[in-house]
Amino acid sequence: MSTLQTLILFSFLLSASHAAVQDFCVADLSAPEGPAGYSCKKVSAVTVNDFVFAGLGMAGNTSNLIKAAVTTAFVNQFPGLNGLGISLARLDIAPGGVIPLHTHPGGSEVLFVLQGSISAGFISSSANTVYLKTLNKGDSMIFPQGISSPSPGLQILDFALFANNFPSELVEATTFLDDAQVKKLKGVLGGTG
Amino acid sequence: MSTLQTLILFSFLLSASHAAVQDFCVADLSAPEGPAGYSCKKVSAVTVNDFVFAGLGMAGNTSNLIKAAVTTAFVNQFPGLNGLGISLARLDIAPGGVIPLHTHPGGSEVLFVLQGSISAGFISSSANTVYLKTLNKGDSMIFPQGISSPSPGLQILDFALFANNFPSELVEATTFLDDAQVKKLKGVLGGTG
Amino acid sequence: MSTLQTLILFSFLLSASHAAVQDFCVADLSAPEGPAGYSCKKVSAVTVNDFVFAGLGMAGNTSNLIKAAVTTAFVNQFPGLNGLGISLARLDIAPGGVIPLHTHPGGSEVLFVLQGSISAGFISSSANTVYLKTLNKGDSMIFPQGISSPSPGLQILDFALFANNFPSELVEATTFLDDAQVKKLKGVLGGTG
Amino acid sequence: MSTLQTLILFSFLLSASHAAVQDFCVADLSAPEGPAGYSCKKVSAVTVNDFVFAGLGMAGNTSNLIKAAVTTAFVNQFPGLNGLGISLARLDIAPGGVIPLHTHPGGSEVLFVLQGSISAGFISSSANTVYLKTLNKGDSMIFPQGISSPSPGLQILDFALFANNFPSELVEATTFLDDAQVKKLKGVLGGTG
Amino acid sequence: MSTLQTLILFSFLLSASHAAVQDFCVADLSAPEGPAGYSCKKVSAVTVNDFVFAGLGMAGNTSNLIKAAVTTAFVNQFPGLNGLGISLARLDIAPGGVIPLHTHPGGSEVLFVLQGSISAGFISSSANTVYLKTLNKGDSMIFPQGISSPSPGLQILDFALFANNFPSELVEATTFLDDAQVKKLKGVLGGTG
Amino acid sequence: MSTLQTLILFSFLLSASHAAVQDFCVADLSAPEGPAGYSCKKVSAVTVNDFVFAGLGMAGNTSNLIKAAVTTAFVNQFPGLNGLGISLARLDIAPGGVIPLHTHPGGSEVLFVLQGSISAGFISSSANTVYLKTLNKGDSMIFPQGISSPSPGLQILDFALFANNFPSELVEATTFLDDAQVKKLKGVLGGTG
Repeated sequence: MSTLQTLILFSFLLSASHAAVQDFCVADLSAPEGPAGYSCKKVSAVTVNDFVFAGLGMAGNTSNLIKAAVTTAFVNQFPGLNGLGISLARLDIAPGGVIPLHTHPGGSEVLFVLQGSISAGFISSSANTVYLKTLNKGDSMIFPQGISSPSPGLQILDFALFANNFPSELVEATTFLDDAQVKKLKGVLGGTG
Repeated sequence: MSTLQTLILFSFLLSASHAAVQDFCVADLSAPEGPAGYSCKKVSAVTVNDFVFAGLGMAGNTSNLIKAAVTTAFVNQFPGLNGLGISLARLDIAPGGVIPLHTHPGGSEVLFVLQGSISAGFISSSANTVYLKTLNKGDSMIFPQGISSPSPGLQILDFALFANNFPSELVEATTFLDDAQVKKLKGVLGGTG
Repeated sequence: MSTLQTLILFSFLLSASHAAVQDFCVADLSAPEGPAGYSCKKVSAVTVNDFVFAGLGMAGNTSNLIKAAVTTAFVNQFPGLNGLGISLARLDIAPGGVIPLHTHPGGSEVLFVLQGSISAGFISSSANTVYLKTLNKGDSMIFPQGISSPSPGLQILDFALFANNFPSELVEATTFLDDAQVKKLKGVLGGTG
Repeated sequence: MSTLQTLILFSFLLSASHAAVQDFCVADLSAPEGPAGYSCKKVSAVTVNDFVFAGLGMAGNTSNLIKAAVTTAFVNQFPGLNGLGISLARLDIAPGGVIPLHTHPGGSEVLFVLQGSISAGFISSSANTVYLKTLNKGDSMIFPQGISSPSPGLQILDFALFANNFPSELVEATTFLDDAQVKKLKGVLGGTG
Repeated sequence: MSTLQTLILFSFLLSASHAAVQDFCVADLSAPEGPAGYSCKKVSAVTVNDFVFAGLGMAGNTSNLIKAAVTTAFVNQFPGLNGLGISLARLDIAPGGVIPLHTHPGGSEVLFVLQGSISAGFISSSANTVYLKTLNKGDSMIFPQGISSPSPGLQILDFALFANNFPSELVEATTFLDDAQVKKLKGVLGGTG
Repeated sequence: MSTLQTLILFSFLLSASHAAVQDFCVADLSAPEGPAGYSCKKVSAVTVNDFVFAGLGMAGNTSNLIKAAVTTAFVNQFPGLNGLGISLARLDIAPGGVIPLHTHPGGSEVLFVLQGSISAGFISSSANTVYLKTLNKGDSMIFPQGISSPSPGLQILDFALFANNFPSELVEATTFLDDAQVKKLKGVLGGTG
């Protein structure tokens, strides 16, 4: 810690992102957007409110066809997320509601159940396998990158829906397809359940 | 280039990947696989054949339900691809054939038409917009990361299929759904075409 | 969709991760770990339970010095997270409790308040600025990459603690330093509050 | 799928790229370029033509010194590639033509032979080894990240050219160096062939 | 190398960064900054001086409280670093000087001792272990990503400082805390040394 | 900081690397290597010596053909670098010595001159431009990703060497080509200097 002559050190820092002077990049939503996100607000204009978002505290309106609501905290609502590769969403699902079959472009999803229970799962394309489980309050589920969510749908759609043991009533609930249609295609493609 | 005293330079190299001594990592398919790919073969065991793959030169067998065949050059067939984040496939589609609706988990796709023509496209979730075009010999098409391919299917499946102007006959051809089923759901969700 | 001659397409897929055949890499905790995570379990051994974790549903024991508990869902408890770059934690803080000053090596943190309220913030090294706010139930806060959390501490520790307007009682609560010590160093370094 | 009380889920999405609302970033070639690529065109101005490129369908003009032509599909010609980390090129090589020795800054290359045959290879710096093979129609070859292409040239140029068994006539054809010059340096550095 | 018919090759390049035409992105400090760095200067305006920085050759002024000086070569001083994820710094430490406790947000650090000697180290959060060593002229030390530097301070500050065998005099020298304060908290948290 | 009821927070951490428990991954050189680096040593076997390397303090032996020596600190000599994407090297160049023309596969390089002076530069493929400068003691130079080093050589070798104003004597010194050979090819390709 103490030296008899002056100590000279060279330090080479590798930043995880860019060699910048500011250690965040809050979105300036009015400035150009690039492949890595929005341009950064000037540091002097950034306030703590750019890093805080209250919108997920309010229930979404589930009076709709699917009896479900998605409240998003994406960079447009929550500019502090810019460039960090994360976004958040709250899902409210009334009794009998459903999150329709969907996929996510290029990203993983973590789901945390705050209240209630749900049958959730995904189909992996590796072996056209259904990973399905009832989640209860306090459970977390990880949907690996690019795979699907509360109910599945990946790679070749027809194989995912009709060529395995994914239960017909779940297929119908998440796709709104008729029972006859589902059973007909399960017959063609060898699915059961 | 010449100096009166010995020159001493310090050089700090930032490798794009790991700080390794070998400049490739051919897959050892019998060794452990991790999130970044398979373990590397010893350099002394690597030959030029690990970097060359002849399998895409042969036509796939299209005598099947969809009159189409996919020949893959993934790391299991082509170990030189290990860890490089790219894989290849050849698609043969006989007259009347179709590549069913599908998605790719976490990756972009570039398509190049070698022979024939095809109606290809994808639906972006940004605005539930259909990007559809007839591709002819020599055309390339890019399907940005995680989005779908020769025919679309992203984000909420029902919105992608039934809530826009995606032509009914293309929906039916790529999903094998019955015309009545497609029109019924288009009616509910406001789709046209 | 139909062609008069056989259509041949070449497709080049760029995967976000490795050019693998499986679309997840559940940790095999007994196998070698590398810079990108643990080795993958064989797909045939993976079950839905690898993707679900119930541990965050239970309250941590807050009968301790800081009246707070951290329950982690890291790859060792939740092997489905392997290689995905995300981990989770539940924090229970009894009345009067505190999460001591800390930093995260190389990562962003999102905080969501499920119940109660907390004074949370971080100090950015850009301008040695304190970003501090009371969070209530339903609020989310983002702590950008590598910066700190419920209470700050980044870059040069003494500047972060003693050279700005970070309130003395918060400094004391999160570091357990004595009031006299805090005020002495605030005096030397020009801090207020 | 159905619950007796309203279900509330929190979902945390990790996007592979940025936490944006649009799921592509077509280049606006007139707007600022950053380290990750060009600024994005407004979604409303994007058309399917941004994702399709016809230029690779046309043969390049090989009436030149090297009897070869390179037709590129880079972001400037094909704006849909912006930020995706991929670009394409077509190489036409007339009989007797050659692609001169070259390297690629920071990227892998996949080569696919559509017609004809070629002697292709690269030299790895690991063991100053030449990986050389005749590729025929339908063959693919991968040139791992940063290494070279149809003919090699990596790391210390003189070692790559003159210190191994890389055949003199290939060295001469790809570098335009005289036979006497090549043999002289092979003699100094211990190369054969 | 020579073919009887014209050879046609397709080449797919995967760039490590973006699919751009320029192979560097020198910062235009007056243009928008995004999450990946500053906008790029036009290539025609770039000179060799953008890639060279002389400022690290001059000693910093150590006539200050900590008897130490940090001279930085960050993107603002050295625009050629833009987007490359590296920055440099020179540390001059007079006899008796000290680099105060600090952390780096999201990045590794390599230290090289040009002259003198120093007691340097870091505390890993894995096992709250102190990695401490005297570095002499010519020694290099790596501080893995996000961990700390010449003297430590990571994760929970109090555990890092007071709950292990990190010598009290080093704690005091790097934090300016009083000896009594350090010993009191070491007593509470079980630290020795 | 204090709440009337127990506060419950959910925290989602995004690690820059993997969702691991240890915050470094020192190479176990005897265990499998993957695309991201070597397997990690057990934490209990890691010592501070894994993070410190003394080898760059010793001059290399410059009694050789090029009157230069390269001393490397790569992962094999310095296991603490594993997976961090950085490596180091010391270059000693005696009067009249030269670092031959070379390229780096997929990475940036920073050069720092400790003693003496050198003519250093690189050729960018963007406009086949030579960026060349005399570096003196204390100067730093950045060679952007994949481009070349003390003397250049990128993209099409013949264009880089013979088609611009790169001085003939530097071409000759770094490639060992004869003056007549260099001038002949400069004549064909239009180079000057």
